[in-house]
Amino acid sequence: MKITADSKKRYYNDPIYGIIQFPFPELQQIIDHVYLQRLRRITQCGLSHYVYPGANHTRFHHTLGVAHLMSEAIKSLRSKGVDISDEEYLGACVAALIHDLGHGPYSHALENRIIPMDHERLSILMARQMNQELDGIMESGIDILSYKHPKIFLSQLISSQLDVDRLDYLVRDSFYTGVSEGSIGFQRIIQTLNVSDNRLVVEEKAVSSIEQYLVSRHIMYSQVYMHKTVLALEQMLILLVNRMKYLISEGTEMDLTPALTSLLSANSSNLEYDILIDQYGKLDDFDFMFAIKMGVMHSDRVFAFLCSSILNRKIFRIEWIFSSEKRYLLHSKRQRIQRSLGVNDDESAFLMRSGEESSTSYLHDEEIEILSVDKERKPLSSFCNISFSREMYTRHFICFPRI
Amino acid sequence: MKITADSKKRYYNDPIYGIIQFPFPELQQIIDHVYLQRLRRITQCGLSHYVYPGANHTRFHHTLGVAHLMSEAIKSLRSKGVDISDEEYLGACVAALIHDLGHGPYSHALENRIIPMDHERLSILMARQMNQELDGIMESGIDILSYKHPKIFLSQLISSQLDVDRLDYLVRDSFYTGVSEGSIGFQRIIQTLNVSDNRLVVEEKAVSSIEQYLVSRHIMYSQVYMHKTVLALEQMLILLVNRMKYLISEGTEMDLTPALTSLLSANSSNLEYDILIDQYGKLDDFDFMFAIKMGVMHSDRVFAFLCSSILNRKIFRIEWIFSSEKRYLLHSKRQRIQRSLGVNDDESAFLMRSGEESSTSYLHDEEIEILSVDKERKPLSSFCNISFSREMYTRHFICFPRI
Amino acid sequence: MKITADSKKRYYNDPIYGIIQFPFPELQQIIDHVYLQRLRRITQCGLSHYVYPGANHTRFHHTLGVAHLMSEAIKSLRSKGVDISDEEYLGACVAALIHDLGHGPYSHALENRIIPMDHERLSILMARQMNQELDGIMESGIDILSYKHPKIFLSQLISSQLDVDRLDYLVRDSFYTGVSEGSIGFQRIIQTLNVSDNRLVVEEKAVSSIEQYLVSRHIMYSQVYMHKTVLALEQMLILLVNRMKYLISEGTEMDLTPALTSLLSANSSNLEYDILIDQYGKLDDFDFMFAIKMGVMHSDRVFAFLCSSILNRKIFRIEWIFSSEKRYLLHSKRQRIQRSLGVNDDESAFLMRSGEESSTSYLHDEEIEILSVDKERKPLSSFCNISFSREMYTRHFICFPRI
Amino acid sequence: MKITADSKKRYYNDPIYGIIQFPFPELQQIIDHVYLQRLRRITQCGLSHYVYPGANHTRFHHTLGVAHLMSEAIKSLRSKGVDISDEEYLGACVAALIHDLGHGPYSHALENRIIPMDHERLSILMARQMNQELDGIMESGIDILSYKHPKIFLSQLISSQLDVDRLDYLVRDSFYTGVSEGSIGFQRIIQTLNVSDNRLVVEEKAVSSIEQYLVSRHIMYSQVYMHKTVLALEQMLILLVNRMKYLISEGTEMDLTPALTSLLSANSSNLEYDILIDQYGKLDDFDFMFAIKMGVMHSDRVFAFLCSSILNRKIFRIEWIFSSEKRYLLHSKRQRIQRSLGVNDDESAFLMRSGEESSTSYLHDEEIEILSVDKERKPLSSFCNISFSREMYTRHFICFPRI
Repeated sequence: MKITADSKKRYYNDPIYGIIQFPFPELQQIIDHVYLQRLRRITQCGLSHYVYPGANHTRFHHTLGVAHLMSEAIKSLRSKGVDISDEEYLGACVAALIHDLGHGPYSHALENRIIPMDHERLSILMARQMNQELDGIMESGIDILSYKHPKIFLSQLISSQLDVDRLDYLVRDSFYTGVSEGSIGFQRIIQTLNVSDNRLVVEEKAVSSIEQYLVSRHIMYSQVYMHKTVLALEQMLILLVNRMKYLISEGTEMDLTPALTSLLSANSSNLEYDILIDQYGKLDDFDFMFAIKMGVMHSDRVFAFLCSSILNRKIFRIEWIFSSEKRYLLHSKRQRIQRSLGVNDDESAFLMRSGEESSTSYLHDEEIEILSVDKERKPLSSFCNISFSREMYTRHFICFPRI
Repeated sequence: MKITADSKKRYYNDPIYGIIQFPFPELQQIIDHVYLQRLRRITQCGLSHYVYPGANHTRFHHTLGVAHLMSEAIKSLRSKGVDISDEEYLGACVAALIHDLGHGPYSHALENRIIPMDHERLSILMARQMNQELDGIMESGIDILSYKHPKIFLSQLISSQLDVDRLDYLVRDSFYTGVSEGSIGFQRIIQTLNVSDNRLVVEEKAVSSIEQYLVSRHIMYSQVYMHKTVLALEQMLILLVNRMKYLISEGTEMDLTPALTSLLSANSSNLEYDILIDQYGKLDDFDFMFAIKMGVMHSDRVFAFLCSSILNRKIFRIEWIFSSEKRYLLHSKRQRIQRSLGVNDDESAFLMRSGEESSTSYLHDEEIEILSVDKERKPLSSFCNISFSREMYTRHFICFPRI
Repeated sequence: MKITADSKKRYYNDPIYGIIQFPFPELQQIIDHVYLQRLRRITQCGLSHYVYPGANHTRFHHTLGVAHLMSEAIKSLRSKGVDISDEEYLGACVAALIHDLGHGPYSHALENRIIPMDHERLSILMARQMNQELDGIMESGIDILSYKHPKIFLSQLISSQLDVDRLDYLVRDSFYTGVSEGSIGFQRIIQTLNVSDNRLVVEEKAVSSIEQYLVSRHIMYSQVYMHKTVLALEQMLILLVNRMKYLISEGTEMDLTPALTSLLSANSSNLEYDILIDQYGKLDDFDFMFAIKMGVMHSDRVFAFLCSSILNRKIFRIEWIFSSEKRYLLHSKRQRIQRSLGVNDDESAFLMRSGEESSTSYLHDEEIEILSVDKERKPLSSFCNISFSREMYTRHFICFPRI
Repeated sequence: MKITADSKKRYYNDPIYGIIQFPFPELQQIIDHVYLQRLRRITQCGLSHYVYPGANHTRFHHTLGVAHLMSEAIKSLRSKGVDISDEEYLGACVAALIHDLGHGPYSHALENRIIPMDHERLSILMARQMNQELDGIMESGIDILSYKHPKIFLSQLISSQLDVDRLDYLVRDSFYTGVSEGSIGFQRIIQTLNVSDNRLVVEEKAVSSIEQYLVSRHIMYSQVYMHKTVLALEQMLILLVNRMKYLISEGTEMDLTPALTSLLSANSSNLEYDILIDQYGKLDDFDFMFAIKMGVMHSDRVFAFLCSSILNRKIFRIEWIFSSEKRYLLHSKRQRIQRSLGVNDDESAFLMRSGEESSTSYLHDEEIEILSVDKERKPLSSFCNISFSREMYTRHFICFPRI
């Protein structure tokens, strides 16, 4: 049976940008592809809606937003005389639409854990597959996303220290979490973008907006992306994946979707990407939530405990530790877990984790560039009055059930 | 294994109201109950995020919002000297927290289709069960919700023509869909609530706000709740349930969660509610989406077609018809479906539906009451300069695949 | 001495629309003209900031907003294939910039009272004068504003039941007063504008937005424009003008600016418009506030009382009356005023007024036209589910000091 | 004649906070005093509406906002068990209402130029006068404002590195200018205020909000308060005052209000404050705008030039210079001014100024204090990951007509 889509021209209502309409019909074809539609079932911020109940927005919505901002950025650059052909315009929008294709369930939480590959590379692989189906219309979009296009500023627009991806996720995550401190003046930044020597620059008059953007990013990291409870939830998902992989290797039956089964049982030393990507293209939050809901009653008590804890929001504890005390603390907590939960030594290993978390705000090796009033390209730091503690700090933690 | 929750006092960040904090610790116990937590997995507006990509907000978030507005309303009434004891205050907040417990997957879309009972009655049944577990702290909340409390205005606050439920869903659905025309001045309405003769009234100075509230409701109905595409998606879900029930009755195997299986196979003439509610309390959007994702590859082509259409957003068509032409149109469409999709006559019955939709804006039999400047209680219609077409209109439609 | 303006290209930060930039340099010339700059000193809503403390926004800001929406509307129409030349585009923006030139101090409050001519006609007269100074660049803008341009829809865009003037003032007045019920979905309305048979139409899908627009207008009238206290303030300004004219005719000296003096002493039966307009072009809120601040100490006690009442926000009272009782009430109040304030009969006539106020919402003689899905032009009323009490109501009032 | 005010309880619609209502009737008496009402005629941001056309908001509106935030802050502190009596609550609100009484025309632009005293001291003097008229109800409010109250945290609430004054002006100026980068999470800050050892502290969980507050302040300074054009307008007003004082000393007649005349002619070495404050209490933006409008036609060409430049927005130029080149540049510009404008050497001195501007963001000598999770009071800098360039920078400029 062939399935026929509705055909009228579509526009999207966005609570943030108002009405979004795209300039090329080809973009609608891409949006309607199952790979894009799959992003409707992946939350942008993983399980952080357990902390911020409004944060149920999806990768799909973010993707539309990025493509919209890209379109606005191109219009802004064109209005300043930057030469961008229609084909390049289309390519830039395609790059925006596909930049997050490779995200899996709960977005960043399980990155590299289901397929040992970061989402950027997966995005490219999936986009190549789509491109074949869609007669090559995505070619230059893929080039732009992978920095192979001669107009480097187009690549910078989608992936650099100041790109439309970051602009959208900051404004969107701030909007949906209600962390108003994270909101940014995206309109002003876009209107002050320019190009100099094939490089993306921001006009000097927007230095304040860039400062505020950096601070917002910093705040969103500390309030949302690296929020202690969100971090704990991520550890719980990782523990869950670990236990599921173990049970699969032991031959224990679980109620898992076929896609999840085949991905978790793949031997990572010997991956056939074509097959895996096909499965990966079917995987989303729902595969996990199904496994979790079913797992609650599973006979493996570790698995059941993890599932039940996630399902019913019994969130593990994070303790910041000194790296020197890690061994000792892991040992003592582990014994306590065994006593409290009645599990054995092997099992307890699947109920706690240590790890580290690093600050990741603005780094100085790849600077945002400013177009000064006298038309010179200079690094942001020569204008900026705000600085961020330069030393990358790393915090060690252990994560374990509240017992 | 016993699961221990984190214990510190919680507050919620709401993008609409700012920081929400609840006045009684008992409320947190209720919020943490699995029945409430289940609402995190039920979208407030069903599949309407297929039309409005931002509308992924949940019944859980709505429930918090309703309880917050209830708390604000009580504070407003108290500040005017209305006598409300702490126990009644708690009860009113409990009523708010439980008012939507009975909603099932996709909220209204499948109401009465999984259990033949409307969500209000289910809410009460589930709340009674919770109340036993929680040592009776919900008693007066249940009374308020079911209009058995002597202070009628408390019941009106949670369920009447102008209640905090409607206030929250209008403002919240407007916010998340981006249909800005639906936003209302909820703060002003709450600040002008009053009580007269044990009845909830609004002070005359807020008549304009009430007019705007009624118009917003009207607009949200026409733009969101009864949006043609949303209506089509609801029909598709109903067709899916019909087919699943049929396949179960035929003994055909499907990948369904146990909760969904037992609910769909229950013989509606002979329901044991206690058991059903136990299952129902485990059911949410994820049970359906799992069934849909798995169903795509099912050997029953009707089921697979419905699943695939929902999953990949191939939305059926709605045509408005005259009731007189219904028989003829159903017949002719049905034949076309058979030809196009290669299904037989019996199968085609599961791929189309006729139905009707009725306008449901402000009805005059139960009027909002206004407290006039001279302290008299009068129906809104004696102040209001706007009227809505009084005759209830009903539109007939048929819904079928785009072929 | 010649005064030289700064020359760099300007943009305006608007709290509502974000960054406003105009498409033609000619528009900047017009904006910089003293007649436009004068609107910076005229509040959009007269003295209603006495009621809504945020409502200090100016005619100038409104004018920029109208021109911005006009530009957006033209872009929207062009994107649908409506033929609009660059010259017509410029003309439409010019029409927007000049449409309120003729407003005087406190906008509507004193319309027709300083020069016996409504502001629309004055706008044209002043624009003609500017046009001579600016070498005729405003020609087609004036034609559009006065419905003399062959493309009628351009005239409708600036002046009809649904024009960018109304869109801007509703959204702006709602924003600055904080009457959130008055906010409208202007973006959506503009994106659904179209042209059919040389007439401006709105596409059917936006009927809800139009309904909401009409209701917002209705609400803004009842909450702001015809707010009882605002009405009282207008009566006080009228009484003030009456007294000043009387004192001038009596030869009494007052501290007035030359512009105000010459306008108030003009014999309305024998006006020389050229001279008057020259003076009028210098008149703004500041001329009045100066007169009021100085008048507080004037020896004429009626004048001083009026000035002091306005300056110190001692607002007169409005009483709604039946027209039949007007004579009687005026008489009895007048005697009371004489006793309380110690003024004589003649003087008391300057301290009270009767008047009437008429509802002015959507009128059916000039309907907004909708472009139906099947591309026909139909009146809004054939779609709209909301109606407004059709009978124009008129309310009679008397206004007098609180004594 | 006695003037009678309307008496019903008032509330204020604020576009930012919604409905504002004050907890004590005494506050309404203070608000209705002519000294408070005078602030309705003083713009919050001077002439910066020449740059940001939406920034016409007044000191009066700001004052209401500060009192509202104070009331919210007190409620927040009380909810945490901080002991604050009703009398102290009232006092804190009074302190908020009077904190800006001493501002003169155009707020900061002419501070110290009309009366050689900063606005804080003038506020106290004027408040004392009001307090006598109002039977001492403002006593403890004045104590709080002048740091003479034993509960130091109350004084800190109205005047410190993090006070409700700053919170309101940042959020309000950001709102009205449309500089969205300046918006702050005031609600969160207020909800995390606390008191420790009689000192105002912020709970550790709000460190991000404080960081964002500091950055917003920094941005508002660079985008609004020290905006080059705003700075130029301030210099023009200072030049105007200088010229007016000179003309008065020369005995030249000008059209000035009596209040302005007496203040400008006061011999600063021999001030009688009682009389001056009486005059100052009558002075507002309108006195200046009247002088400017009349001055345009004055025979003194310097005065007329300054008036005309301000009135018609012919804004002077600011050039950043090295302090070493100041003498030389002043000299050469001055000669150019003489040639271009046909003025003599003495006159030209009134048409240009040099000056310096200093960065004034967060200073480390008086730190915001944080209440750490383990209940210790620590300076913000021990938490904060953002730092501001520590060295106070000072920029030298010259300001002169564009010729």
